[in-house]
Amino acid sequence: MSNNFKVHILGSSAAIPTSTRLTSSQLVNYHNKYMLIDCAEGAQMQIRRFRLPLMKINHIFISHLHGDHYLGLPGLIFSMHLLGRKKKLHVYSPSGIQEIIEVQYRISKLEPGFDIQYHVITKGKQLLYSDNHISIETIEMMHRLPAYGFLIKEKPSERNIRKEAIEQFDIPVSSIPAIKNGADYRTASGEIIPNEKMTLPPSPPRVYACCSDTGYTENYITEIANADLLYHEATFLNDKADIAKEKTHCTALEAATIASKANVKKLMMGHYSARYDELSLFVDEAQTLFENTILAEEGLVVEIEQVKPDNET
Amino acid sequence: MSNNFKVHILGSSAAIPTSTRLTSSQLVNYHNKYMLIDCAEGAQMQIRRFRLPLMKINHIFISHLHGDHYLGLPGLIFSMHLLGRKKKLHVYSPSGIQEIIEVQYRISKLEPGFDIQYHVITKGKQLLYSDNHISIETIEMMHRLPAYGFLIKEKPSERNIRKEAIEQFDIPVSSIPAIKNGADYRTASGEIIPNEKMTLPPSPPRVYACCSDTGYTENYITEIANADLLYHEATFLNDKADIAKEKTHCTALEAATIASKANVKKLMMGHYSARYDELSLFVDEAQTLFENTILAEEGLVVEIEQVKPDNET
Repeated sequence: MSNNFKVHILGSSAAIPTSTRLTSSQLVNYHNKYMLIDCAEGAQMQIRRFRLPLMKINHIFISHLHGDHYLGLPGLIFSMHLLGRKKKLHVYSPSGIQEIIEVQYRISKLEPGFDIQYHVITKGKQLLYSDNHISIETIEMMHRLPAYGFLIKEKPSERNIRKEAIEQFDIPVSSIPAIKNGADYRTASGEIIPNEKMTLPPSPPRVYACCSDTGYTENYITEIANADLLYHEATFLNDKADIAKEKTHCTALEAATIASKANVKKLMMGHYSARYDELSLFVDEAQTLFENTILAEEGLVVEIEQVKPDNET
Repeated sequence: MSNNFKVHILGSSAAIPTSTRLTSSQLVNYHNKYMLIDCAEGAQMQIRRFRLPLMKINHIFISHLHGDHYLGLPGLIFSMHLLGRKKKLHVYSPSGIQEIIEVQYRISKLEPGFDIQYHVITKGKQLLYSDNHISIETIEMMHRLPAYGFLIKEKPSERNIRKEAIEQFDIPVSSIPAIKNGADYRTASGEIIPNEKMTLPPSPPRVYACCSDTGYTENYITEIANADLLYHEATFLNDKADIAKEKTHCTALEAATIASKANVKKLMMGHYSARYDELSLFVDEAQTLFENTILAEEGLVVEIEQVKPDNET
């Protein structure tokens, strides 16, 4: 059984919410760890609406400090406090979010009853988070403010030892961890059993590349290459490519170009300008270049599935 | 035809939003003037959802600086800017909101393209707004932070001159304004016609008393006396009266007590604690004391209707 790896879309609008779309946030769930990426106005309401566990969010990643990506954070923190949170919360963001939050504590005379550790994201590749299962690194975007995407990479898992091999070669329990890590095995009679005879390769580690607001650039294509899922902003359609360029945003065609050049498995677009009602036009445009394209929409859950390993034996 | 006087409920929850209730805001519409009272997280989405004219809001009144009453303001201002607003916006609030907003302009490097005039509400009765039709005064609440309600009073209208009287006494057009203001009329032959013989009294001016977060106090009962509509917070039911007192909030029973002592025509409760699912319990409790009670709920529109004047003739 592979670990859960899911992306829940909370909001898909750029800059201004519409009557049906909220500004952009998403909740990533890896094996019951919940990580919030951006926290737009209304994110906490969406978390409740979709019955996601608000109090299990321990890590919040803010891509950049335009209002449509952080305005829900003060309210989420106040709610966590009022719901009795005691556990530390980690907030990763370009410099400034701590000041925005703390001026509000002071004026509202409400200090949360839990610690918040602010991690300031700066230029250059940064490893923000790492545990036994995943790591999260920054991806530099090209925007009007310092802006970052996030590369969530599963760590390589151990090889799968075959039950029959354990019986056939009479392998003691104490030798199994080394074999799972790729070691060969020497039997009681001194015979060397090559690892490949006992194990199957693990599934390849899954990668989610989440690219926030950015003008078109190929700077990060190698970083996101071969990702299982790429979230990429597509604020405009190609007929507004000039506005996209002026505002350092991308079109659906540009998002598809990145997906194609990076050879990712699937593209999810988001961050649509409020001027568009009919989002299927985004898919139509992107699919002229990259077939496996979907739309981020409020309530969508995308499961990043494990790919079956090639059988090496 | 009387002027429109309507209250649109945008959010009804206290402190924490629920999956169906947003924190508290309402939009008051008087004769195509739109005034926002409190601006909770998500208020701008509700305004769009209920197809209310976001760009026609020129006056925003913030009762106090707890997050559940102002967190939607930065997003609303950013949206007004992005939608091209040029007209000045007036924000009335206890001291602090300007700092909260301006720290965000600086960090986001987004200065709105329109002026905001901040009016600081301080202790003591203040007249915040006045035009030809209405005035808006503060009502001092009793809360953990300085908190205010708002008394929206229609100005007395002119008396209605009867058509038959104009013909009967041959009144020239130039004399009509004075008669509408209550003057008697001297005919060509020198006869004095008492005003009551020519006119009917105007409808009594309508009054909306909007009372924000407060512990139980009778301090403002004379100020809100006889209001056509009283909005009053009712955060808890009576079985949590001790918590209400500790947190300086009211119960449904206390809201009804205020409504009854102030002899208002109708009570609308709001600002319910997120712990309650079943709001009909609030009405049941309040109606043991005050019959004409309704619940503020998202999307509700309450029309404050003109009462037909007593016929004095």
